[in-house]
Amino acid sequence: MNSKYKTIKYKQNKSSNSEDLISIEEPLEMVVRYKKKSKWIDNSISITMRTPTNDENLIIGLLFCEGIVHKISEIEKIEFLGEKVGKFDLQNKIRVTLNNSENLNTKHLRRNFLTNSSCGVCGKTSMDSLEIICKTKINKDIPKIKSSLITKIPNLLTQSQSEFSKTGGIHSSALFNKKGKSLVIEEDVGRHNALDKVIGHSLKNSIFDTKNQFIACSGRISFELVQKTFMANIGLLMGVGAPTSLAIDLAKRFDITLIGFVKSDSFNIYCGKNRILK
Amino acid sequence: MNSKYKTIKYKQNKSSNSEDLISIEEPLEMVVRYKKKSKWIDNSISITMRTPTNDENLIIGLLFCEGIVHKISEIEKIEFLGEKVGKFDLQNKIRVTLNNSENLNTKHLRRNFLTNSSCGVCGKTSMDSLEIICKTKINKDIPKIKSSLITKIPNLLTQSQSEFSKTGGIHSSALFNKKGKSLVIEEDVGRHNALDKVIGHSLKNSIFDTKNQFIACSGRISFELVQKTFMANIGLLMGVGAPTSLAIDLAKRFDITLIGFVKSDSFNIYCGKNRILK
Repeated sequence: MNSKYKTIKYKQNKSSNSEDLISIEEPLEMVVRYKKKSKWIDNSISITMRTPTNDENLIIGLLFCEGIVHKISEIEKIEFLGEKVGKFDLQNKIRVTLNNSENLNTKHLRRNFLTNSSCGVCGKTSMDSLEIICKTKINKDIPKIKSSLITKIPNLLTQSQSEFSKTGGIHSSALFNKKGKSLVIEEDVGRHNALDKVIGHSLKNSIFDTKNQFIACSGRISFELVQKTFMANIGLLMGVGAPTSLAIDLAKRFDITLIGFVKSDSFNIYCGKNRILK
Repeated sequence: MNSKYKTIKYKQNKSSNSEDLISIEEPLEMVVRYKKKSKWIDNSISITMRTPTNDENLIIGLLFCEGIVHKISEIEKIEFLGEKVGKFDLQNKIRVTLNNSENLNTKHLRRNFLTNSSCGVCGKTSMDSLEIICKTKINKDIPKIKSSLITKIPNLLTQSQSEFSKTGGIHSSALFNKKGKSLVIEEDVGRHNALDKVIGHSLKNSIFDTKNQFIACSGRISFELVQKTFMANIGLLMGVGAPTSLAIDLAKRFDITLIGFVKSDSFNIYCGKNRILK
């Protein structure tokens, strides 16, 4: 989603008036409704700045990656709330009502969202807590992919990024099958939102087949992106930018293949090289 | 701050072993200590993923940009807490003790940090709340700068970015004077952290002279970066990437000159063109 803005373009000492397309950024308040002792409780878990497209996928993906929702059947309904606000006339509040939520661990819900998924205050504790959440999840069937496919990914991502070509100011994430077919691509001004949307879409439409799939993203690779990839049980993540230390440490801990700086003729492997075929 | 990681570099069908420098990402828990009814209260306001350099500047800048601290004398002391943790042996918890905090509006403290600075759920309400916080701040003395200086900024930023040249995976923000002298530059895996560090450093060392300064940053320009620039009473912000819609809207609301896509021979002006000299 984008909007036209007046722009003055300056190039080689000359200026000209223009109208450029700009990626929209608006806040989204996310509310989880659950039942405790037969009473409905609305818990506002987060406000994130996002590009207002596929908000349903965003909240499904976020709840899944935080370990609040494990399968799509746990969601009873998703509604937009409140009046349409702001210059783009949007409902910026979304609520997920959970099924069978009497046993929901609300302490866990609160802790996760208040701390950006970092319980404890070192990378190690963050990873320990992930291990607890995901014990049953570690993917042993990670696909093997060809190096010649990896170097095609930046181009495939750019081709599928309809918003990026218009605004130059938006991140993308995509789920690919091991043959290089893009199964879903999502865009957002927040890189973590783009990946949440991919995971939410994939969960909602039952397209995960984790033995045969990998995730690619347009920017740098933070801890958070590896964490979300891991929660989705995908064993291979690549990005066109640099990884952080904690992203590599987390990939190593759970044996996720992690590839960075992907370009049309080169890439770096930080973990899981045995799954890259010459 | 960076660390060596084993990397397999793949280029044109050949692979080689290497050791690359990777930017460190670790969580930092930030605690504010204040007095209410003669009792000390510790309030854990945020955990952010950051590069562990100049954490003191980060927390000072964040508290200033959130309107919790207005001048450096309001801070009694800053301490690191807890044991050294993780593979880099770091104290990842930092506490600011406030002076004269009996009148601190703790509701405001909580609301701001829980909602990523977006009270209300549309861009407009976010901006309204900024206007309330900053009524006395609107900078009428924004410097005029030459277009030939603007196109030099990407190069000046890169030259000063010691970490970026090593890892390729870190954002920078810098405070420049209107002649193009870099007064402080900070780097962090989080773009908002880099700017918080610049603002914290400038406040701590009394180097703000807002009539004669501007801010430049290495990436895209979100609402949050314009908000922080505004809170620092700086009237001109430029970035090498694209702005978002809300970044432009906020700049227009408070008459901040906003410049994006800065390259060595071109840039775009989104607001405040009268301050750019040919």
